[in-house]
Amino acid sequence: MNNFGIDLWSNNNFFIEDGLLKINHKNKPSLISLVKEIRKQNYKGPLLFRFPHLIEKQITRLYNTYNAAIKENNYHGKFNAVFPLKVNQFPTFVHPLIEAGEKFNYGLEAGSKAELIIAMTYNKKAPITVNGFKDKEMIHLGFIAKKMGHNITLIIEGLNELETIVEVSKETNLPCPSIGLRVRLFNGGSGAWAKSGGIDSKFGLSSTEILEAYDVLEKNNLFDCLTMIHFHIGSSMNNIKPLKNALKESGHIYAELKNLGATNLNSINIGGGLGVEYSQYKRTINYSLQEFASDVVFTLKNIARQKNVEEPNIFTESGRFISASSAVLIAPVLELFSAEYEAEHLRLKEVNPPLIVELNELYKDMKKRNALEYMHDSIDHLESLLKLFDLGYIDLKDRSNAEILTNLIIKKAISFLEVNAYEELKRIDNKIQEKYLLNFSIFQSLPDLWGINQEFPIMPITHLDKNPTRSASIWDITCDSDGEIEFNPNKPLYLHDVDLDKEEYFIGFFQVGAYQDVLGMKHNLFSHPTEVNVTFDENEVKLEQIIESQKIIDILDDIDYDTNEIKSILNSQLDDDIYEILEKYLNDNSYLKTTWS
Amino acid sequence: MNNFGIDLWSNNNFFIEDGLLKINHKNKPSLISLVKEIRKQNYKGPLLFRFPHLIEKQITRLYNTYNAAIKENNYHGKFNAVFPLKVNQFPTFVHPLIEAGEKFNYGLEAGSKAELIIAMTYNKKAPITVNGFKDKEMIHLGFIAKKMGHNITLIIEGLNELETIVEVSKETNLPCPSIGLRVRLFNGGSGAWAKSGGIDSKFGLSSTEILEAYDVLEKNNLFDCLTMIHFHIGSSMNNIKPLKNALKESGHIYAELKNLGATNLNSINIGGGLGVEYSQYKRTINYSLQEFASDVVFTLKNIARQKNVEEPNIFTESGRFISASSAVLIAPVLELFSAEYEAEHLRLKEVNPPLIVELNELYKDMKKRNALEYMHDSIDHLESLLKLFDLGYIDLKDRSNAEILTNLIIKKAISFLEVNAYEELKRIDNKIQEKYLLNFSIFQSLPDLWGINQEFPIMPITHLDKNPTRSASIWDITCDSDGEIEFNPNKPLYLHDVDLDKEEYFIGFFQVGAYQDVLGMKHNLFSHPTEVNVTFDENEVKLEQIIESQKIIDILDDIDYDTNEIKSILNSQLDDDIYEILEKYLNDNSYLKTTWS
Repeated sequence: MNNFGIDLWSNNNFFIEDGLLKINHKNKPSLISLVKEIRKQNYKGPLLFRFPHLIEKQITRLYNTYNAAIKENNYHGKFNAVFPLKVNQFPTFVHPLIEAGEKFNYGLEAGSKAELIIAMTYNKKAPITVNGFKDKEMIHLGFIAKKMGHNITLIIEGLNELETIVEVSKETNLPCPSIGLRVRLFNGGSGAWAKSGGIDSKFGLSSTEILEAYDVLEKNNLFDCLTMIHFHIGSSMNNIKPLKNALKESGHIYAELKNLGATNLNSINIGGGLGVEYSQYKRTINYSLQEFASDVVFTLKNIARQKNVEEPNIFTESGRFISASSAVLIAPVLELFSAEYEAEHLRLKEVNPPLIVELNELYKDMKKRNALEYMHDSIDHLESLLKLFDLGYIDLKDRSNAEILTNLIIKKAISFLEVNAYEELKRIDNKIQEKYLLNFSIFQSLPDLWGINQEFPIMPITHLDKNPTRSASIWDITCDSDGEIEFNPNKPLYLHDVDLDKEEYFIGFFQVGAYQDVLGMKHNLFSHPTEVNVTFDENEVKLEQIIESQKIIDILDDIDYDTNEIKSILNSQLDDDIYEILEKYLNDNSYLKTTWS
Repeated sequence: MNNFGIDLWSNNNFFIEDGLLKINHKNKPSLISLVKEIRKQNYKGPLLFRFPHLIEKQITRLYNTYNAAIKENNYHGKFNAVFPLKVNQFPTFVHPLIEAGEKFNYGLEAGSKAELIIAMTYNKKAPITVNGFKDKEMIHLGFIAKKMGHNITLIIEGLNELETIVEVSKETNLPCPSIGLRVRLFNGGSGAWAKSGGIDSKFGLSSTEILEAYDVLEKNNLFDCLTMIHFHIGSSMNNIKPLKNALKESGHIYAELKNLGATNLNSINIGGGLGVEYSQYKRTINYSLQEFASDVVFTLKNIARQKNVEEPNIFTESGRFISASSAVLIAPVLELFSAEYEAEHLRLKEVNPPLIVELNELYKDMKKRNALEYMHDSIDHLESLLKLFDLGYIDLKDRSNAEILTNLIIKKAISFLEVNAYEELKRIDNKIQEKYLLNFSIFQSLPDLWGINQEFPIMPITHLDKNPTRSASIWDITCDSDGEIEFNPNKPLYLHDVDLDKEEYFIGFFQVGAYQDVLGMKHNLFSHPTEVNVTFDENEVKLEQIIESQKIIDILDDIDYDTNEIKSILNSQLDDDIYEILEKYLNDNSYLKTTWS
């Protein structure tokens, strides 16, 4: 039975039972039962489920694994982690995150002023780190956060930021936040300097700049504020090797600065990069969290011993690892567009063009031994017939007959032959997939699929006791030909042959909790799906904080239309009874099949 | 003098004079004068200028060119055009568009319910077409629009939509809108059926389905509503050949339906696809608007004559062509990050590691004849020294000296040699570009650059009387390594060597009026740039409808934070004088360097 690679990607968060995809927690409800519960309350269109228990699970795994490695290695530094808000700033995610992390003192990372405000407001006593390019205001905000009592570290991306810190410190008389130095690594992956990302990386200080920074700090009596060395090796690493090299490089920079006299320097922040398995076909991450944590602890311990400095505290800023699994998108299938052409639709005439007659004969006379030859002939004939149509020699009925007959012939050939043995047959077979039209927008809900060809695990949430037989491509409802997940024979998606007049069919997209919310695009003015937090109270599941997808009128308001003007123009041109219906539509969300019963 | 390919892409909309980029309209103001005017009013960060006169110019070009082709060919159909709202739904664009199009009866196309509401509200008497997947509500909206008096055509994407039209017609007693049939073309580009996009296109009806649609219309007395055949060949075509094939195919479908008895069928809608020149390096569009229009008129005329039917009216739905040039993004350069390592930063010791000594000698002894060899040696040495650092054998000062010396050696080698003669030298030279940090977000303002590697013309708006000498890469202010436009030696961008302490430097991004507004992503919570409509009143330029980039507090409100809670939490933890400053920051926009003086 096709289990959609659930063993690879789901980390036991979900399991299949009685044909349904279920949540492996507490009373183990099925996803479809939650979908039905929500839809009963009249929320239609795509749904985004957030699972706070999966955020907690990942935070716990992270701390437990590192703390075990620290214990095993008798390491004297402490483990700390912060969540990079850029990965998910939405309050329905952030509030449960902070709650789940409290017992570990799990903190937040901010990369812009708006993110820093979130951290300053909702962080309790946990660390805050600040990355990214900073102006004087943002640095001032850091000082204000420090004044509020936050344990905040400003990570310096360039020497000018350090100079601004000096200025703000002099001008405000506020206490100085901790300072971290982001180092520009030469170990960008490929190793060799001339080829690596080292010299042209967007972020960080060279060794020369680090020494200059050290001088600036010393000269301005801010030396005591320097507490952290920071690096970031890249997003979602598949391979652990670059990490080891980067650790050695930054570990020695830490030790060197300690030995130069940086007394309060006590931490190495290894940034993010902890991989998440997005594939449902084969494992793509070559290491475990255990190996990752062990490598970090072991390498830093060795360097500290070699250089005779204290073992640094370890900070991580992994975002995907914490958030990806915590959100699941469920989209209803609206329609199946078959590429099927039935014999009953043939409109053969008394006298048909010779090539149509031939197609008909090929169809009737096809045997296994001539199947491939006849199929080739039929495709040739179809191309000729399409050309004849374009030139005005045959009519629309002939053209339709040509389409149907060729499709019937190809299907007959496929039934005679082993599809996978013929590249060409495979290619043609791939083109006649079932198209599943889903009530969602890829641009809004899976922007990384469009932008960076990110894979996401995809599977139906019901029918899992039957083997899916239809090789499928997925269409969204935007007017954009990019709004499609094409069938890929190397990563084939098979779905069930359902009759939507009789049954509903929902497709789940998994690991969508990282970046997909904030990168969502309003293509065709489709907005964020209806979202809901799924929590568990003993053995009962609760659907909390349902936020409906935006109403049409609010979407228009958002892009700065004068919505009162819109209403009054429409009202003035319609009778009241019709305007009343129209106004109901304005207050519906923008997805399809929302209210008409 | 480098003119940044302005002759290729600007269509005479802009020109260079006195070192400034100027607008070729009315009193021909420079872009920098407008930027200064806006910034005087305290709007900082990136600016989006919209130029309604360029919308008008493109609409006029479109109509004039088609009408000339119609006259020349003595064609009896009429030319009509609609603007596809998905390309730009923003009111600051749409209102001037409708105003500029009124004299031509230029209409609107809608692809979602929200877009249809915009069209129903603001369209006057021009045609409306509706594409995309439609539910019963959206079809009902179409009926309501018809009732309001709009000339509206619902383009059918699948047979089920036709059945829904029949239902709504029976259930509401409202007048039926016009109906169009979108045909699925086999002429997808490559020509051969088995390879073309034909059979697996996301949209449209096969010949067989068209005949079925015809039967459904006939059976339900909606036959009179069928007025249009529609096709769409793809976005931004570079090559005209697929258009010609598609015209033949759809022209014959039109003629066939006419001859079957579709009495009110009178239009062919050729969709969009009219290309826009985005390249500043070489021409990428192989046809002119004249050729495009001539081909359309000539092909349809021939088919109508051949099949003895009336010549159809022509509809187009070109969006990029109308809108791309009408918006220009201007981003201030915040900082130049040089990869320069000056000899004055060397921290040589009395006794240096042997490889440092050797590097020093290579640097001193380099001559033209040994330049390449010495450079190779220095890179080898640097790699060894970096390895020694990672292993703890040399210290941070040695490492810094190694970086500086190798960079000095490479620069000396480059000064001796012809860079372009050596692939390796070119590659290394490319890596030591100047990095220009710009106060904008690529994800927010140039989403297609991230998503589909769309090129946009880039150039500074001042300094154009000096040749730019720095090969440049551009960084945005997001915390994302994708937020970068890397230097590309095949499409090299050179910028000026400016001293930002003494002068300002602004970079313009052109042709950003199509899709970039609505696809903008809130990565790191950076929102839409400050935008302004530039209009001309006789010989005076006016800056209208300035909409500032969102305030931080409004951005947080948008993603559903309780902003009163945020304010009260922050207020409760800070003295009033500091909270006052903080509140000022909350009411600033999120870009850098906004208010601190």
